[in-house]
Amino acid sequence: MAKRAFRIDGLQYNNWSPEIFQQMKVGGVDAVHVTIAYHENLRETILNIEQWNRWFEMYPDRIMMGRTGDDVRRARETGRTAIFFGFQNPSPIEDDIGLVEIVHTLGARFMQLTYNNQSLLATGCYESQDSGITRMGKQVIKEMNRVGLVIDMSHSAERSTLEAIDLSARPIVISHANPSAWAPALRNKSDTVIKALAARGGMFGFSLYPHHLKDKSACTLDSFCSMVARMAELVGVEHLGMGTDLCQGQPDSVVEWMRKGRYTKETDYGEGSASNPGFPPMPSWFEDNRDFDKVAAGLHAIGFTERDVDAILGENWLRFFDQNFGPVASQGDEIERQAIGTTATH
Amino acid sequence: MAKRAFRIDGLQYNNWSPEIFQQMKVGGVDAVHVTIAYHENLRETILNIEQWNRWFEMYPDRIMMGRTGDDVRRARETGRTAIFFGFQNPSPIEDDIGLVEIVHTLGARFMQLTYNNQSLLATGCYESQDSGITRMGKQVIKEMNRVGLVIDMSHSAERSTLEAIDLSARPIVISHANPSAWAPALRNKSDTVIKALAARGGMFGFSLYPHHLKDKSACTLDSFCSMVARMAELVGVEHLGMGTDLCQGQPDSVVEWMRKGRYTKETDYGEGSASNPGFPPMPSWFEDNRDFDKVAAGLHAIGFTERDVDAILGENWLRFFDQNFGPVASQGDEIERQAIGTTATH
Repeated sequence: MAKRAFRIDGLQYNNWSPEIFQQMKVGGVDAVHVTIAYHENLRETILNIEQWNRWFEMYPDRIMMGRTGDDVRRARETGRTAIFFGFQNPSPIEDDIGLVEIVHTLGARFMQLTYNNQSLLATGCYESQDSGITRMGKQVIKEMNRVGLVIDMSHSAERSTLEAIDLSARPIVISHANPSAWAPALRNKSDTVIKALAARGGMFGFSLYPHHLKDKSACTLDSFCSMVARMAELVGVEHLGMGTDLCQGQPDSVVEWMRKGRYTKETDYGEGSASNPGFPPMPSWFEDNRDFDKVAAGLHAIGFTERDVDAILGENWLRFFDQNFGPVASQGDEIERQAIGTTATH
Repeated sequence: MAKRAFRIDGLQYNNWSPEIFQQMKVGGVDAVHVTIAYHENLRETILNIEQWNRWFEMYPDRIMMGRTGDDVRRARETGRTAIFFGFQNPSPIEDDIGLVEIVHTLGARFMQLTYNNQSLLATGCYESQDSGITRMGKQVIKEMNRVGLVIDMSHSAERSTLEAIDLSARPIVISHANPSAWAPALRNKSDTVIKALAARGGMFGFSLYPHHLKDKSACTLDSFCSMVARMAELVGVEHLGMGTDLCQGQPDSVVEWMRKGRYTKETDYGEGSASNPGFPPMPSWFEDNRDFDKVAAGLHAIGFTERDVDAILGENWLRFFDQNFGPVASQGDEIERQAIGTTATH
């Protein structure tokens, strides 16, 4: 049998359960970047990590903690899914740059600089004024680069996103979004942003969250795959992946938390509306982790080669994980290299 | 030249500086267990880790983070000192057992179940009633055993200490104390405790903090070494190490924090007194990390073999580090072992 390609999802936020872990196994999903904080402060984020630690202890045959690209390979080898932590907002680092290294040590591998609103670091896509990366934002980008915490601009505004791409010494991601040329949601991204992202080695994960899709829940697989094909022409297939934004089994109270956090006492429908305030139904061709084969079939049907489909469904993310989750070479590494060199010649 | 034995100190709490890091290098100290919390809650403890992270970044030629016994070997190979984190109180885990794994992930390797007073887990040596290990204490001991966070009973009361030794499935330590038969301080330990500790594979670190010494600051090296010799007869040399409790360069405000934390508004002189409230002067033969050779010479003079001196000054701690800082074999490890076994036979 040919070696099966790695399958990785660039973002999910499910109401996690052994059933969903089992679906990931059935769907052949080797790794998932899971959101563990929307608006949580450090202590609340740590409570969420504690919950994951319990799941790792309770379901060691289905999931394992992911820290490096090699952990995806270990997960594959042992028939499990590697779980990589990420934040949709910088709230877990509060106002403290020292927390960047702390959360990386605790396993965080992605952090959005902002979620819809202005943060201490950057401007979100729902603000009327986009003032770009802040003074603290510039410092935090440097520190994220140093430790290997990947910058994610999925919910950020255009100028802030372009500045982050430019300021970051390492590639950044838009883990879950679609091109606004295809579906003009505020949360989707301009071709300008997507091209700049790819030009610096970044990754773009395609969202299957209905508010990011053309025709929302009624979006066809063919329409989605045609959009992917256009993007491959625009920036090259090697910068594309999935970031389904699957929010399986979540009650609507959770979408309210995602949209409002603690920033307002009023209603904020976010991407929804008064008549459609909750989680929208997923497209019929992607309801849970068992449906990646349908996406693969759709991409094949639109004309992608098997190699390209594999790249989009996981191999590109794996390459990105390998290159971006560790610290940059430090003075300590150099000291070690020299010492080992010295030992070797004696 | 013969391979120099490893030199490890089982407890220090200095006012850290590049000068002290340099003294560790000069003194050939390969690893130190450093206190990073007395009464700090989780967030405050993380601030202290952040401070250490800055030092690791600023002085990569002198110190490095220690997580395993092999890190001591890496430190030796690269001419540095490996720093291992520990808490003198369980305050960093607050009332939350999930924080045991979190602080271990952040690098903690030792935690005292109590510091002088009653804690949520056990009774301290200054309480008039010692009620033993609490309900939460029993749970936390199991969890510490699971993840590889070592139980330290240096400041605990007798019954609590004996129960912890008995309840713990893995060896525990008294990182810094002396036998009360030699110096009858409340903080020192009975022969009963020391024998029980050793019988279960535990380690006893000798303190050089004057309040734990016979004749305090005037204690002679010969008196100290004679006491060590008696202890070696009592429990065997393999359970003995150093835990100097060096508090170099600390202002007296720090000893007040150590003694009082936030538990009282009144004065608590702890081991001191109204006429001697501050840090006492160290014995003349051990003023800083450059003085371990003097201790070694004293032990030689009293009749210890070179091998025994090496064991007491570091080799015993290294063996203990190797065996006790990792998680116990988990179901996940078994899954991995089987998967790799399966792969190998196909």
